[in-house]
Amino acid sequence: MKTEKEKMIAGEMYNPADSELVKDRMEARRKVRQYNQTLETEGEKRTKLLEGLFGSTGENIYMEPNIRFDYGYNTYVGDNFYANFDCTFLDICEVRFGDNCMLGPRVQIYTATHPLHPVERNSGIESGKPITVGNNVWIGGSAIINPGVTIGDNVVVGAGAVVTKDIPDNVVVGGNPARIIKQIEL
Amino acid sequence: MKTEKEKMIAGEMYNPADSELVKDRMEARRKVRQYNQTLETEGEKRTKLLEGLFGSTGENIYMEPNIRFDYGYNTYVGDNFYANFDCTFLDICEVRFGDNCMLGPRVQIYTATHPLHPVERNSGIESGKPITVGNNVWIGGSAIINPGVTIGDNVVVGAGAVVTKDIPDNVVVGGNPARIIKQIEL
Amino acid sequence: MKTEKEKMIAGEMYNPADSELVKDRMEARRKVRQYNQTLETEGEKRTKLLEGLFGSTGENIYMEPNIRFDYGYNTYVGDNFYANFDCTFLDICEVRFGDNCMLGPRVQIYTATHPLHPVERNSGIESGKPITVGNNVWIGGSAIINPGVTIGDNVVVGAGAVVTKDIPDNVVVGGNPARIIKQIEL
Repeated sequence: MKTEKEKMIAGEMYNPADSELVKDRMEARRKVRQYNQTLETEGEKRTKLLEGLFGSTGENIYMEPNIRFDYGYNTYVGDNFYANFDCTFLDICEVRFGDNCMLGPRVQIYTATHPLHPVERNSGIESGKPITVGNNVWIGGSAIINPGVTIGDNVVVGAGAVVTKDIPDNVVVGGNPARIIKQIEL
Repeated sequence: MKTEKEKMIAGEMYNPADSELVKDRMEARRKVRQYNQTLETEGEKRTKLLEGLFGSTGENIYMEPNIRFDYGYNTYVGDNFYANFDCTFLDICEVRFGDNCMLGPRVQIYTATHPLHPVERNSGIESGKPITVGNNVWIGGSAIINPGVTIGDNVVVGAGAVVTKDIPDNVVVGGNPARIIKQIEL
Repeated sequence: MKTEKEKMIAGEMYNPADSELVKDRMEARRKVRQYNQTLETEGEKRTKLLEGLFGSTGENIYMEPNIRFDYGYNTYVGDNFYANFDCTFLDICEVRFGDNCMLGPRVQIYTATHPLHPVERNSGIESGKPITVGNNVWIGGSAIINPGVTIGDNVVVGAGAVVTKDIPDNVVVGGNPARIIKQIEL
């Protein structure tokens, strides 16, 4: 028998009012608030706080405050991860970044979704889908990555793009919904 | 003879430098700041502050900080209102939500507009149009609702959608500008 | 022989890890934090802080917190400059606003860009392109202005527009990517 947390991470319908999840979210809010109160001079402290927030981290990671996370522990980042100001991660399912990923300001990573049927949605039950990002990916400012999306290696997501479908390796995408704009020759 | 505040709420051209409106905005800024300084452990205090900010509220309402409002008193929400992180309401005209509405992070509710003609706009005179949202509506993260828009019941607005026109009941919309993507069968 | 800072402002490839630039960004972060901690009652202090942050300023300028800037000193604004809540300026190259410009909430001004080739991008070298905005321009909420864009006089940029190309005088633009929606008759 799965816990609500196990169901959530597995992408199944779950109840977010579950006491373990409420506690976990409170803990994440506290950690996030602590991070957002650090000063620009406290780079090492920021790194340590991110290491205590994320599921796993590589070397050389940084995020500009203010950050927002639902849980933090569902976010896994590789080496050389950089996120500019004010990024939001709704990480109810796993969010996985490869190495050398950089995010512009206000990038939105949304694994969370809700039923489309209003009666089902109003019941409070919800679910999510994981987001996976390859190596050497640059996500431009204010871009949105929707639940379930997988982004390949060496991808550039244009500023303000809304990514609703998987993206193959070595392309630039842009627009709402995002479409392939050009191939990147390696 | 209408006051500037009465003209503003009526959707007529008005002068935002009016002393009553300046005072009201300062009061809203103070209330909003107070809200954004609450801790994640202060759920009851948050509810009370929202009740003191909005024109009217139903049961069970919540917004994740940081919130932004022009006046607050022009915002009316029904029961079970939930807004995720960092939503902005430019509520110079009335913003009305039915019951069971949920907003993703960074949703933008803009009733405020300005003259298109530069000379008129530079005079400082401006106006707005009300926004009305039905029951059982889910507005996805970073979506923008433009002045004058009415959204029907049971609507889902996709993440990053820019809603420029009225939306009927029972549909999913997405894109910029937002278009109907699918019907929701009830 | 140019310094990294001179290369940056000139739009050439430069190294952001340069010690002068690191120091300048820390100084900008400090000034921005100081600004974002001011109260709504401290209008004069806000004006003075913006004057100390920007490259140059006209009369009657205002920004609603929270503001975000990379350097500040590359931003030049004319008279009667107003920016609503939570605007972000990545001003590694010059950002120039004429007189009578108003920005809605969450407007994003991005002069910064990165190489599309992953190996080159991962080297950390980057560059930018200046953004120039004419007189009497209204940029709607959450709009994004991309590197290198020049916007003419009397332009209105619709809420949520993503501006990727130059815009002539006297037009309204909207969408992602932004296109001309109508002419403004003067």
